[in-house]
Amino acid sequence: MAEIAFRRAEKADVATIVTMLADDMLASSREDTSGPLAEAYRKAFEAVDADPNQLLAVMTEAGRVIGTLQLTFIAGLSRKGALRGQIEAVRVIRDRQSAGLGRKMVEWAVDQCRKRGCVIVQLTTDSSRHDAHRFYERLGFKQTHLGYKIDL
Amino acid sequence: MAEIAFRRAEKADVATIVTMLADDMLASSREDTSGPLAEAYRKAFEAVDADPNQLLAVMTEAGRVIGTLQLTFIAGLSRKGALRGQIEAVRVIRDRQSAGLGRKMVEWAVDQCRKRGCVIVQLTTDSSRHDAHRFYERLGFKQTHLGYKIDL
Repeated sequence: MAEIAFRRAEKADVATIVTMLADDMLASSREDTSGPLAEAYRKAFEAVDADPNQLLAVMTEAGRVIGTLQLTFIAGLSRKGALRGQIEAVRVIRDRQSAGLGRKMVEWAVDQCRKRGCVIVQLTTDSSRHDAHRFYERLGFKQTHLGYKIDL
Repeated sequence: MAEIAFRRAEKADVATIVTMLADDMLASSREDTSGPLAEAYRKAFEAVDADPNQLLAVMTEAGRVIGTLQLTFIAGLSRKGALRGQIEAVRVIRDRQSAGLGRKMVEWAVDQCRKRGCVIVQLTTDSSRHDAHRFYERLGFKQTHLGYKIDL
């Protein structure tokens, strides 16, 4: 296995990240990968990048971006004023799936949360993603909640 | 019904909010309501209050705080750079439950998300809170995801 590393995403990574987000059974219809990259993605990247409580990350293998996830650190009064880490938008590039890299990336993310002082890490995953459920359970996550969404 | 209003929580509301958070079957053991209020709650309030992407809100009835929830606005690349609203820590004070006030409060929160430009509002609720599931479904939320957590 070539050298795996993790870093904060940069503007130059946005198109690759969007391609990974779109290359997914459930998400493909939700993204716009037609070139040039939609301005909304650039704007969203700037908002995420400017927010000290957000960390959009990429995983690289020998310098090539092969994975991404987004971490959000959420302060709140609940659980004695606990800081939570939240993971969203987890992807490993198609040709590097099933090599244990997703596990490496999520473990790295949990470790970032620990270093930041979070007492809990949370995420949701679509009810139909049975492989993802097993994946998170193997990593020690407990399925304790139901996730609700409403489109505006 | 007396006048219901919503506003940003202030430092003076923190003890009341913590009391509401703790007055709950699942959460009581997670909070510390012994006086004086634990410093961790004050610190958490300051972090939330200082974050432009967080809105800790209270619902008042004739000036009395009778409900609370926390909104987090999360920018991200997913869904064409969509802004998400996330609702956490929803409580209505015990003596004013079952009066339709929770519905009013969540509708207010969804409206805040709409005004802010969110295209989706999300939340999770403990799998055992069957009344809460029906509550959110009646408000138009769809149970599409499973929620996972890991304690650090």
